[in-house]
Amino acid sequence: MARVYNFSAGPSVLPEWVLQKAASEMMEYGSSGQSVMEMSHRSSDYQAIIDSCRQSLVDTLHIPEDYEVLFLQGGASTQFAMIPLNLMNGSGRADFVLTGQWAKKAYQQAAKYGRCNVVASSEDGVFSYIPQIDAQKLDPQADYLHICYNNTIYGTRFPTLPSCGSVPLVADMSSSILSEPIDVSKFGLIYAGAQKNMGPAGLTVVIIRKDLIGHARDITPIMLDYKTHADAGSMYNTPPTYAIYICKLVLDWLNNEMGGIEQIQKINAQKAALLYDYLDESKLFSATVQGECRSLMNVPFVTGDKDLDAQFVKEATAQGLVNLKGHRTVGGMRASIYNAMPVKGVQALVDFMARFEAAHR
Amino acid sequence: MARVYNFSAGPSVLPEWVLQKAASEMMEYGSSGQSVMEMSHRSSDYQAIIDSCRQSLVDTLHIPEDYEVLFLQGGASTQFAMIPLNLMNGSGRADFVLTGQWAKKAYQQAAKYGRCNVVASSEDGVFSYIPQIDAQKLDPQADYLHICYNNTIYGTRFPTLPSCGSVPLVADMSSSILSEPIDVSKFGLIYAGAQKNMGPAGLTVVIIRKDLIGHARDITPIMLDYKTHADAGSMYNTPPTYAIYICKLVLDWLNNEMGGIEQIQKINAQKAALLYDYLDESKLFSATVQGECRSLMNVPFVTGDKDLDAQFVKEATAQGLVNLKGHRTVGGMRASIYNAMPVKGVQALVDFMARFEAAHR
Repeated sequence: MARVYNFSAGPSVLPEWVLQKAASEMMEYGSSGQSVMEMSHRSSDYQAIIDSCRQSLVDTLHIPEDYEVLFLQGGASTQFAMIPLNLMNGSGRADFVLTGQWAKKAYQQAAKYGRCNVVASSEDGVFSYIPQIDAQKLDPQADYLHICYNNTIYGTRFPTLPSCGSVPLVADMSSSILSEPIDVSKFGLIYAGAQKNMGPAGLTVVIIRKDLIGHARDITPIMLDYKTHADAGSMYNTPPTYAIYICKLVLDWLNNEMGGIEQIQKINAQKAALLYDYLDESKLFSATVQGECRSLMNVPFVTGDKDLDAQFVKEATAQGLVNLKGHRTVGGMRASIYNAMPVKGVQALVDFMARFEAAHR
Repeated sequence: MARVYNFSAGPSVLPEWVLQKAASEMMEYGSSGQSVMEMSHRSSDYQAIIDSCRQSLVDTLHIPEDYEVLFLQGGASTQFAMIPLNLMNGSGRADFVLTGQWAKKAYQQAAKYGRCNVVASSEDGVFSYIPQIDAQKLDPQADYLHICYNNTIYGTRFPTLPSCGSVPLVADMSSSILSEPIDVSKFGLIYAGAQKNMGPAGLTVVIIRKDLIGHARDITPIMLDYKTHADAGSMYNTPPTYAIYICKLVLDWLNNEMGGIEQIQKINAQKAALLYDYLDESKLFSATVQGECRSLMNVPFVTGDKDLDAQFVKEATAQGLVNLKGHRTVGGMRASIYNAMPVKGVQALVDFMARFEAAHR
């Protein structure tokens, strides 16, 4: 079978350039005589790989000098505890915006460690929009304000960042990082599981303002203290070496093959427009999110008929358009169109949707 | 350059069969149209991979039915906290045998969460032996007794398991798992970072008796509660999918290409004997560990002359025998000869040592 167009929400499609490079270097990286998977993390060959990955991330996102980039494990779910354990050390309070299942999990886990305040929620509308934040509700003494910037399940994205003054803004960017330029200086901490736009599952990237490091609670496990990893250049213990190498290749691809992050943003906007424009014209399909909250990365849509949705997913799969089934809480379909999804993949999806619509109207 | 013989302590050499298979499947796994790295962890293709990995581990180690196999992240260092957070819930006390740096780190981290008692230590001899345990010192009310079964840095291994009655025995087996049959029923919990004998860095395998699950302390992060992962079949969040796939390939290789764990034990004994026999005869080199405590996986040795040690490491590297430098706390050299190191690799090392000795005696 040929390679499919994989619309999975994560782990998800990777650039063929990256996979081909990884395959060609699997038996031997450069003149090292070893696979990257076999390299001691203390070797100079491996140090060059992790250094290159870090520098490339710094250059791509213009990360200021007063931030640390950490390569960790455990996914966003581990960050849900690591963040309060490290940051909830002033007032012991934090503010949360509930925009989906993951934002809620971050809130629930943090509530174990301090007083958590929901300042806005879109749960009343099955998280199909980004709620307005009433500035009055923000706690000026909060240790941080937490948002999930792009909501994978629901297909929403913050159109603008909340204004929270001197309170550090903490953002889960798992499903949008590297898809568009961001102003890192507006955040106290950004975290992202790599398995959507950065590489394989098993790597978590944290970008943290240096002054937020070093204040972990007494009960914090050594491995959950940001200081442990900042002090050791993410090598306190063996990092997920191969996943970091793939992340480096993804960054090489983004910058050298695709023209950089400004260029990929344009392509992402073009891909999203292809799909949303079709959905807005369609008599059969409709998008579940409207207006400026629409995500460029995750596009949920429905026919309004569960059986027809299932038939669409089945027929699309047979056409090599896979993983289009929506999350059970939203139903219908969802197309995740991360950086590595080519324009022609989205075009193939829209063409198939048009054929399906013609057959079912 | 040809592939080297890589004596790294971890990450370390992988079977060429595994690397070749992984390279050949990088663009497409089976007829899935995707790389394993791109697969949704919720897909049936991926479920089959993780199920096969788990079953293969159960079959290889004869893991009894009252144990769970968990695929986690964070390395042994995360287990150092996870174990006391989950197990130190009865008397709040645990016993520790100090046989090296890692055993000590496990002890120090656990001391944050309860009363930790050192029942034996070989620190007085730079951890070059496994100390006798005075049965009188064992706490019959301890929540567990912790050992590091094979000590990577120092090249020691427990010749017999301590008798601790009904107290659960907890063992770090990172550098010996899959190298020999073990009687899992003698342990409460076994943990191992995968990057020595099982696969790439970024995967931690935990084998835990089911009755020890479900008693985590209140302060335990959700991701550090064994119950979270046991209840979800190691899929509470996205597991390190590619590392698990490589671990499955390593198990396929072990069982189908190498004849299983009894056979690999024989080969490991043969490889270790080749090296130890040479060291015991040598007038230049000597092993730093004597007798029945010698590890079959990690073999430290010295010339007694630091400059000569450095020269040996340098010349060996030029011969394609790499990563032989010993850990700084022991000095000299260390050859890690895990399952994937072929007999001819150890023979090449011994041959080179003989040539070096002839030139320097």
